[in-house]
Amino acid sequence: MSQASDHGTHSGFCETYQAAVELVGKRWNGAILAILLTGPKRYRQLALTVPGVSERLLSERLKELETAGLLVRRILPGPPIGVEYELTEPGRDLCEAIEAVSAWAHRWVATGQLRL
Amino acid sequence: MSQASDHGTHSGFCETYQAAVELVGKRWNGAILAILLTGPKRYRQLALTVPGVSERLLSERLKELETAGLLVRRILPGPPIGVEYELTEPGRDLCEAIEAVSAWAHRWVATGQLRL
Repeated sequence: MSQASDHGTHSGFCETYQAAVELVGKRWNGAILAILLTGPKRYRQLALTVPGVSERLLSERLKELETAGLLVRRILPGPPIGVEYELTEPGRDLCEAIEAVSAWAHRWVATGQLRL
Repeated sequence: MSQASDHGTHSGFCETYQAAVELVGKRWNGAILAILLTGPKRYRQLALTVPGVSERLLSERLKELETAGLLVRRILPGPPIGVEYELTEPGRDLCEAIEAVSAWAHRWVATGQLRL
């Protein structure tokens, strides 16, 4: 039950899906990705837009998402020198999935049946 | 920036979306939900189908998903007495979002641009 080709088998278990949903849904990652879907952002903008994230964890998560292939880190020539993060093509392609999660959440929170 | 109504604002940040994606993507939860999308399951079936999860964490996650309103726990009359878990209507409605994440993952892992 550990192959990508297991997607859609009777058990419902798929390692590729599990790794993906845990990457996208890992604490802070979902918020970072949604913010970057609105366009490239500087490190400082991200830090200000995600409430409660520490600089250490934000940097860790950005590095993790870069390693996974979801975003690129770019040094902006100064002055002042800055660092910008931009989604890659796979990152931008998360749009549909993120919108589906967001629409689902708003739909069911509104009924009181989903308690977040 | 902390209201559900912030969904879709320029910053891309939305607390409701963040809480939802972190619930669905929390370690083990995404796998549990995908398995339950194939139908109700007994505790033992879930434990056998999700590789690597401990009994303690599986129980914790099931309780958390129940509290959030995504599944119900039902005592099955014996013998032998068993416990079954079934998605609620909000839980079943995650199907589209979960399929979007899964399709996205398989699409980009296949190109080598997504590294999970």
